[in-house]
Amino acid sequence: MAILPPGVSAESFASAIREFQDAVGRDWVFTSDDDLYSYRDHFSYIKDQPNELIPSAAVGPDTTEQVQAVVRTANKYKIPLYAISTGKNFAYGGPSPNVRGSVTVDLKRMNRILVCDDKRHFALVEPGVSYIDLYRHIQQNKLNVWVDTPDPGWGSLIGNAMDHGIGYTMGFYRDHFGAHTGMEVVLPNGEVMRTGMGAMPASQSWQEYRHGYGPDPCGLFGQGNFGIVTKMGFRLMPAPEHWRNGLVTVPKREDLIPLIEAVNYLCDLSMCGEPWYGSPLMGLMGNTEFRDAAMSFNESAMDRLAASAKLHSWQVELQFYGSERTTLANWEYAKEIVARKVPGARFTDGESLKTPLTREQIASTTGPYPTNMRRNITQGVPGLGIWYMTGRTENNPNAWNETHIGLFSLIGRSGEAVLKAQKDFADVARKLEMPSLFPNALQTPVNWYQFAFLMGNGFGLGRGDNSPAGKLAATAKLREVLRENAALGYGDYRAPPILQDDVADQYSFNDFVLRRFTEQLKDAIDPNGIISPGRAGIWPAPFRSMRGGMRS
Amino acid sequence: MAILPPGVSAESFASAIREFQDAVGRDWVFTSDDDLYSYRDHFSYIKDQPNELIPSAAVGPDTTEQVQAVVRTANKYKIPLYAISTGKNFAYGGPSPNVRGSVTVDLKRMNRILVCDDKRHFALVEPGVSYIDLYRHIQQNKLNVWVDTPDPGWGSLIGNAMDHGIGYTMGFYRDHFGAHTGMEVVLPNGEVMRTGMGAMPASQSWQEYRHGYGPDPCGLFGQGNFGIVTKMGFRLMPAPEHWRNGLVTVPKREDLIPLIEAVNYLCDLSMCGEPWYGSPLMGLMGNTEFRDAAMSFNESAMDRLAASAKLHSWQVELQFYGSERTTLANWEYAKEIVARKVPGARFTDGESLKTPLTREQIASTTGPYPTNMRRNITQGVPGLGIWYMTGRTENNPNAWNETHIGLFSLIGRSGEAVLKAQKDFADVARKLEMPSLFPNALQTPVNWYQFAFLMGNGFGLGRGDNSPAGKLAATAKLREVLRENAALGYGDYRAPPILQDDVADQYSFNDFVLRRFTEQLKDAIDPNGIISPGRAGIWPAPFRSMRGGMRS
Repeated sequence: MAILPPGVSAESFASAIREFQDAVGRDWVFTSDDDLYSYRDHFSYIKDQPNELIPSAAVGPDTTEQVQAVVRTANKYKIPLYAISTGKNFAYGGPSPNVRGSVTVDLKRMNRILVCDDKRHFALVEPGVSYIDLYRHIQQNKLNVWVDTPDPGWGSLIGNAMDHGIGYTMGFYRDHFGAHTGMEVVLPNGEVMRTGMGAMPASQSWQEYRHGYGPDPCGLFGQGNFGIVTKMGFRLMPAPEHWRNGLVTVPKREDLIPLIEAVNYLCDLSMCGEPWYGSPLMGLMGNTEFRDAAMSFNESAMDRLAASAKLHSWQVELQFYGSERTTLANWEYAKEIVARKVPGARFTDGESLKTPLTREQIASTTGPYPTNMRRNITQGVPGLGIWYMTGRTENNPNAWNETHIGLFSLIGRSGEAVLKAQKDFADVARKLEMPSLFPNALQTPVNWYQFAFLMGNGFGLGRGDNSPAGKLAATAKLREVLRENAALGYGDYRAPPILQDDVADQYSFNDFVLRRFTEQLKDAIDPNGIISPGRAGIWPAPFRSMRGGMRS
Repeated sequence: MAILPPGVSAESFASAIREFQDAVGRDWVFTSDDDLYSYRDHFSYIKDQPNELIPSAAVGPDTTEQVQAVVRTANKYKIPLYAISTGKNFAYGGPSPNVRGSVTVDLKRMNRILVCDDKRHFALVEPGVSYIDLYRHIQQNKLNVWVDTPDPGWGSLIGNAMDHGIGYTMGFYRDHFGAHTGMEVVLPNGEVMRTGMGAMPASQSWQEYRHGYGPDPCGLFGQGNFGIVTKMGFRLMPAPEHWRNGLVTVPKREDLIPLIEAVNYLCDLSMCGEPWYGSPLMGLMGNTEFRDAAMSFNESAMDRLAASAKLHSWQVELQFYGSERTTLANWEYAKEIVARKVPGARFTDGESLKTPLTREQIASTTGPYPTNMRRNITQGVPGLGIWYMTGRTENNPNAWNETHIGLFSLIGRSGEAVLKAQKDFADVARKLEMPSLFPNALQTPVNWYQFAFLMGNGFGLGRGDNSPAGKLAATAKLREVLRENAALGYGDYRAPPILQDDVADQYSFNDFVLRRFTEQLKDAIDPNGIISPGRAGIWPAPFRSMRGGMRS
């Protein structure tokens, strides 16, 4: 199934491949179907379709200089590139480029940890360094820092930050792009640029002050296509000596409003880590009466049935970091703040542990969750436990999300906004006859981002029709979900390539001025449009006619 | 002294002025010398010289639409604009544009507080809103948030953030640009753009998630010339119920190293606010023997003389925010962490106060400082107390900084880096025969930025030669300081227009690729170069030949 980059002849492509081989070594240029197998998205809704987003080749540079050579060759032959690193990017399109026939630039050989400073609390890494790599380095060198990791620890720090990914410790560190401290980027013309203090040749504080001097272009590289990041710094959280958690529950539906106010207060004073919201009523969804009340958003009926089941409506688990005494003081204060605002709130002490976790604690599967994932991840221990609860596992009864698209919308960070979003999302799901279990009246937001709530909606097919036609229909439906949500004020933060133009369409203020402005910038620095054309809806001039092409 | 924008005829300028009057009203276009008096930098080192950076006119729009009209007219006549708001920008050039004859766009009429949410903790403001304005709004409406203010409270939140300014509360909130939550910008072509979730017309979370979707251009507007910001959101710190401070001292010079490690640890876990470093030995500088030791960096002699004077070498004042009990737990933990690392450290409890401060407390002048500035500012109360210790006050014996240029360099956030920087800066000052009191062996860094140290060096003339020739000589000397510092790895974060090209020159990695990249972007979106040409060393094509012009 040999394919070519768009508009590139077989002869040109063969010449380019030879140049790529000269640049990175013959062993690191892949063109056979077998070799390219791992550069395809095997969960793709358009797998094996004529428009599958499949690369024409993959190249594996080992150094920044090799990335520069690859970019120069791509410019010469006008071949679009698409950079990936160590993660799987599940739910967001895997390794798929936006343009079929792109050359994948696989950065996983560049896996050097260049700096990891546990006195000033930062690391400087290459794209091939995964959370697990950095964690191991920290353990082996007994460094006094934690790494804030997303659910699967196999991902790249740089790759995850580039996709605006998140983690589970203290607020600031959870926003992986927000916690970056400057970059080295290979620009579309092949030049190497460093941002922030990295622009000073002799600087001693590259990882400490990212604004540098004058305009800072870093934001353009996140979810963007302005260059290939070859080094990036990250703030690391100093290792606290103690961790503790605690559970808060509140009785009534409307208690969610003051509960979230109280938790926002604690979070924004950095007195706790990620708050994990949920509903103790999930078990009642098997009860027909409750389910009917929930599906019709009958608030008083839900409250009545919860009370008669002696269950509270909402819960939040809080994490505390510090010493035994400061974490206790913060937890006691959390109780006080919540109790003042929510009559009837109950508090359950969780675990109180000296850190770091022992190997036995990390491996333990006793406790409130079927895996130890939650405790580990809130303490900076990367893992792969997430695959217990999701993934394409036919035999796993918990695999509610067996297909491969995740959509999360930004909602306001308040109880009012959550209760409204539940209804709004349910209305949309009903109107569009979505097969998903989500959304419903018990759905809670995630506070991964320090100051924002995301709420999931539209998770692909669920256990729906897995035929090619069924997948196309589901994709079309997800497009409708995105449109309906946008009309209601809900925008998504991330999407797989087949939906990126649709998400970009949500951001339409003043006739898409943000997108037009960004594309003007893109055209200025990448006239051949070779760096990830189409990513996040930004199409450079030579490829602009492809906008929206995945819809047809 | 009628002057014209460069290359603009008197007729064209007169037409432009009429259009400006049509746009903003006749009363809000200023061209007379009297009216323009307040738009000059009266502390300028080149005041009344032929190259004084003085505007040709000033216009005062009241709305975003009026800013758009002004920008369109400027484009039509190719007139450079320079936007200012409510602050004085002392030490950084006041209201001076980079190009003589620019038209100043004075945004102070746009002073609306559009949102101030004390449950989700953010504000959305226009450029004319000062810290004092927002503070008053919060007081009048009894809102449960604080504003993080820089030294003088009269400045604009937007203006200060645009210049990468800082404050004095908890780490995250101190970085005013870092704490922004999206912007509305009038682009060089006159269009209005909104970033982050603001790009979604119906979004309910503009101030909660600033990354939005895809590449984020916000960084280009900070210290930049890519547009005129007309609205901007900021995170606000929730009002803590209690504030406490404490003083830590450590005996020996080299104890600064573990002291800073301990404080970095506490800061990066958000257990304290701004650490305020100093040296209790400042009083010994009148003693000839100590002064000689200090000037020659004789470390053992300094330690010996400090011990015989029964004084400690270093101190740091820490601020704690929370409840009475959590602030106490944090302070006690701070003592424990420092004591573990620094034998001989001493701890002095400071004040422990229920917040907010009363009017009497705010106005009080008793306490450790000659004004109550410090206590107020660490508790989000803006003021003008800073003018006690600096400013051009001939009769004030404390006015060591009577002239008008401030240079602060980034240094590493470690004791080693501080001790090295003291020596490096002193060597440079000696070599260049600088008149300043700074730098010396007791100088400490400021930790305004959450993760960075700045250290002052080269504060203009001190009590030097205030003649025009003396000022020119001093400016030339400051240029040399910047060059010498850059060679040693110290880069500045901010500068007045007459030195901005020199600071930009410090950031020279790979033949100034960052500046070349930025100017490529600038040319793409501002072909006439009308928005603040030259700012932070970014010169658009039509004005590029002016680069370095202030040096001659």
